[in-house]
Amino acid sequence: MSSGLHQRAIVIDGLIISNFNRDVFEDMRKGGITAANCTCCVWEGFTETMRNVARWKRWFGEHGDVITQVYTTADILRAKKEGKTGIILGWQNLTGIEDQIGYLALFKELGVGIMQMAYNTQNLIGCGCYEKVDSGLSEFGHDVVAEMNRLGILCDLSHVGPKTSSDVILASKQPVAYTHCLPAGLKQHPRNKSDEQLKFIADKGGFVGVTMFPPFLKNGPKSTVDDYVEAIGYVMNICGEEGVGIGTDFTQGYGQEFFDWITHDKGYGRRLTNFGDVINPEGLRTIGEFPNLTAAMERAGWSTTRIERVLGANWLRLLKDVWRA
Amino acid sequence: MSSGLHQRAIVIDGLIISNFNRDVFEDMRKGGITAANCTCCVWEGFTETMRNVARWKRWFGEHGDVITQVYTTADILRAKKEGKTGIILGWQNLTGIEDQIGYLALFKELGVGIMQMAYNTQNLIGCGCYEKVDSGLSEFGHDVVAEMNRLGILCDLSHVGPKTSSDVILASKQPVAYTHCLPAGLKQHPRNKSDEQLKFIADKGGFVGVTMFPPFLKNGPKSTVDDYVEAIGYVMNICGEEGVGIGTDFTQGYGQEFFDWITHDKGYGRRLTNFGDVINPEGLRTIGEFPNLTAAMERAGWSTTRIERVLGANWLRLLKDVWRA
Repeated sequence: MSSGLHQRAIVIDGLIISNFNRDVFEDMRKGGITAANCTCCVWEGFTETMRNVARWKRWFGEHGDVITQVYTTADILRAKKEGKTGIILGWQNLTGIEDQIGYLALFKELGVGIMQMAYNTQNLIGCGCYEKVDSGLSEFGHDVVAEMNRLGILCDLSHVGPKTSSDVILASKQPVAYTHCLPAGLKQHPRNKSDEQLKFIADKGGFVGVTMFPPFLKNGPKSTVDDYVEAIGYVMNICGEEGVGIGTDFTQGYGQEFFDWITHDKGYGRRLTNFGDVINPEGLRTIGEFPNLTAAMERAGWSTTRIERVLGANWLRLLKDVWRA
Repeated sequence: MSSGLHQRAIVIDGLIISNFNRDVFEDMRKGGITAANCTCCVWEGFTETMRNVARWKRWFGEHGDVITQVYTTADILRAKKEGKTGIILGWQNLTGIEDQIGYLALFKELGVGIMQMAYNTQNLIGCGCYEKVDSGLSEFGHDVVAEMNRLGILCDLSHVGPKTSSDVILASKQPVAYTHCLPAGLKQHPRNKSDEQLKFIADKGGFVGVTMFPPFLKNGPKSTVDDYVEAIGYVMNICGEEGVGIGTDFTQGYGQEFFDWITHDKGYGRRLTNFGDVINPEGLRTIGEFPNLTAAMERAGWSTTRIERVLGANWLRLLKDVWRA
């Protein structure tokens, strides 16, 4: 049952930050991922981020049988047709532009279509969700939002503080997104979003991708894929069936060194949080098990239309709105 | 007479390194330039070159009524149709990639379609024409040529030393070019190419753009546009009517500071040459006077076909060969 629906559907994962290599790309194929927002900047500056992009360009050549780069939603439909996984290059921080707003156009042309405004702490644009006081979107940040709007780059707010998030939601002329978050209504955590926050972004035409990252799930490392579906359902009750999608936050292939890097300010500074053991939900331990998510939605009694929307149709519409292509 | 031919023709300038701004862009329109190879890297490293490219992207927006970016020869034909000047981003040095071969793909995607292998002195790839001993193309340089071939970036050898030039001509699987040079047969100068060098590149399927930069012309600052046509004719006798084109080397709007920068190693080191006063040939003092070049070719009794080839048809064919688009 589920395998047929999963295979037919457009499946878009709004956030993967795995240790990208051939194994991960093949697992994306096994999991039936049509396209994924793949992180290529977390704490890096301009040059390192350009090197990350250059490495992706090499991978597109070397692994062109299983992955293909996505610039437009037409590329996502093409990936589906060709049986490949479309790679959307994305950032979790705006450190990649340093202080140069003109770099945004270069990265957009190179295929970076989604950028998070801040990662956990304060940057030149605004504040992350672990910053004690969120001072909101800076003046430079306002200029950055306007330029991202002009270029068609999706503003991601997942790791962004509450005040900066509200400021971006109000400043942006295009829909914005939490690409990967969970509801605080199921578990209190600085990374989780309150019902009010979820309602606010939805009321302003925005979008919420729901993560399964276990430290933020109600049952932590004991979570199952059904806990994930419950969380998606919770968000859907607030944001509507067309306002939600998937954003797993798969960190496949990474070990402690990586988690230390992402949980310390700028990769090396003070500790911001401690995930403990990261054990993905039972049934969805690996990207390749993605069809189990569709099966769990079917077990929950969701209609085919609802499942298709959540799996990818909603993401596709959002990206088309923002990218205008 | 000439104005009609000039207005109808595809006019491609293989090298302009002017102080780019609205005045220069409008003068390109006045001169009827269909497309030009515009320098955006001389001594700069990666980050500075990316900033130069970002500045061009801004200009394409701000001056979109008179200029348009060229990625393919179809863009050149479109520029002609739209009455704009197509801008081919080009480099006079490979310092822009520093030691990262993967950066070539990024710059090609951003529209850099022509790159000179070295500028006047030695770099990581090979030697420039003012280096006392030209040690030839390095091993890294061989890798760079192969990657430029793969990506479709034209190898420019104008300021490159004789041994490195021969090595590139032999190593490249695609035609290469002196985009802007003059024949040593009319004036001995380290920047000018001997009859043997001109014959060698032509025999290997390469191309020669002829410059009018007065320090390298027979009559120096007293040259006229007719001296320029004589020089083009001289090169044509060696390379054939389909192997030559224009590459003016207009430095419009620049003063002594700029000439000091380009004539010192790495922009600040030992002096490599001294141009004296740079006074462009009478009749071709500014880009806007470009139609006078066509008139001078007609005065020299050249056929319409020959003039059209030299003005742009030959360049167009070369670029299509190399860019494969």
